[in-house]
Amino acid sequence: MAEILLYHKLLEFPLFLGMKHKDIMELVAHTRFGFMKEDANKTIVEADSPCDSIIMLVNGQIESITASADKNFMVEEVFNSPFTLQPENIFGMTQRYTSTFRTSTKSHFITISKQELCILIDKFDTIKFNYLNMLAALVQKKQRATWLPNGTDTRSHIITFLTSHCIRPSGHKVYHILMNRLAEEVNTSRLEVSRELNKMQEEGLVTLARGRITIPFLERFVTL
Amino acid sequence: MAEILLYHKLLEFPLFLGMKHKDIMELVAHTRFGFMKEDANKTIVEADSPCDSIIMLVNGQIESITASADKNFMVEEVFNSPFTLQPENIFGMTQRYTSTFRTSTKSHFITISKQELCILIDKFDTIKFNYLNMLAALVQKKQRATWLPNGTDTRSHIITFLTSHCIRPSGHKVYHILMNRLAEEVNTSRLEVSRELNKMQEEGLVTLARGRITIPFLERFVTL
Repeated sequence: MAEILLYHKLLEFPLFLGMKHKDIMELVAHTRFGFMKEDANKTIVEADSPCDSIIMLVNGQIESITASADKNFMVEEVFNSPFTLQPENIFGMTQRYTSTFRTSTKSHFITISKQELCILIDKFDTIKFNYLNMLAALVQKKQRATWLPNGTDTRSHIITFLTSHCIRPSGHKVYHILMNRLAEEVNTSRLEVSRELNKMQEEGLVTLARGRITIPFLERFVTL
Repeated sequence: MAEILLYHKLLEFPLFLGMKHKDIMELVAHTRFGFMKEDANKTIVEADSPCDSIIMLVNGQIESITASADKNFMVEEVFNSPFTLQPENIFGMTQRYTSTFRTSTKSHFITISKQELCILIDKFDTIKFNYLNMLAALVQKKQRATWLPNGTDTRSHIITFLTSHCIRPSGHKVYHILMNRLAEEVNTSRLEVSRELNKMQEEGLVTLARGRITIPFLERFVTL
């Protein structure tokens, strides 16, 4: 019974997409999974800590906090299950999380150690190619975004800044950033940024507080 | 004799890094490689054409041409062997080259079809993990670049634009872009961009012509 539940949960994640029934039943029977239950407001991983396992949110809601390299601004995002915490950081040069993740509700996680993941990659072609495709798709998404036009006005530049500085360019975000810094990032004056953000607030797109820009739905900007 | 040469050539590429002597000799003996010799000024791949093989430049020099999504500006880069043409595009959502590549001197290439590559990934753990690490490293590099400060003046913003709009942020580049468009990209006036680029020309960092910015060594900017 527990195995059947696990089977259904795993199939919600891109890593297991398209696996044959027989294969996933075998996987469930022979893989050492970790299971984690956490209350709200618990830190799951800290930014800069080693990324040595796949952590999958199977129930609940979590928040990420990502800081700029100089720690002068940061972005909070919200994710609901199913969500995998930075699977791109388990390989590569810097095998560390770049964001902090904490629970915003009671949450359930399934974890797979890197060692166990390597066994799965070895054993199941689907998992191997899902992983390769997932990483390649991330590179391609970032490449494509770079070569899009930046727009001709301050609002477009603010939107480019917001949509590039997050893990997923949709959903609820809170940017902790001073107007001065945002003005530097988009190469304009503090006054101009303030004027534009206030217009966006009047249009109901953002809510402003000192050092904080709250955005209920970032995807709304994409169609502007 | 030919196999020994091939063996040494392959070991120059990240994909085969760290392979055991025994494994690479087996690989050389059993893999169907393609070999290509081209004169100067031949197109090797066109942007948007399907990426269904690994193409490795083993001798000579090639140029890439990458255009913006709206085709309003483009960047030329130069690469010497050993160089692999966009190995990130053989997997993922968009299995197409995003740049055009052509020879600038007489050049030799080794090619491996995707089908053959999948056999190698399956057979040799080192190749599988080299590929996963290579793709993950590309994602991490792009993520890191995003979160660096953009600087507080027009020159920093121009440099961020230049270093983000290329395949490799070092070496010789030619940007085909009008001052107006560059001004839009960095959110300032045409006059301001023109003034800054002329200062950079006086300092010997760039050479300007109508619609063209030539940079002998892009890496010089990184230490500015």
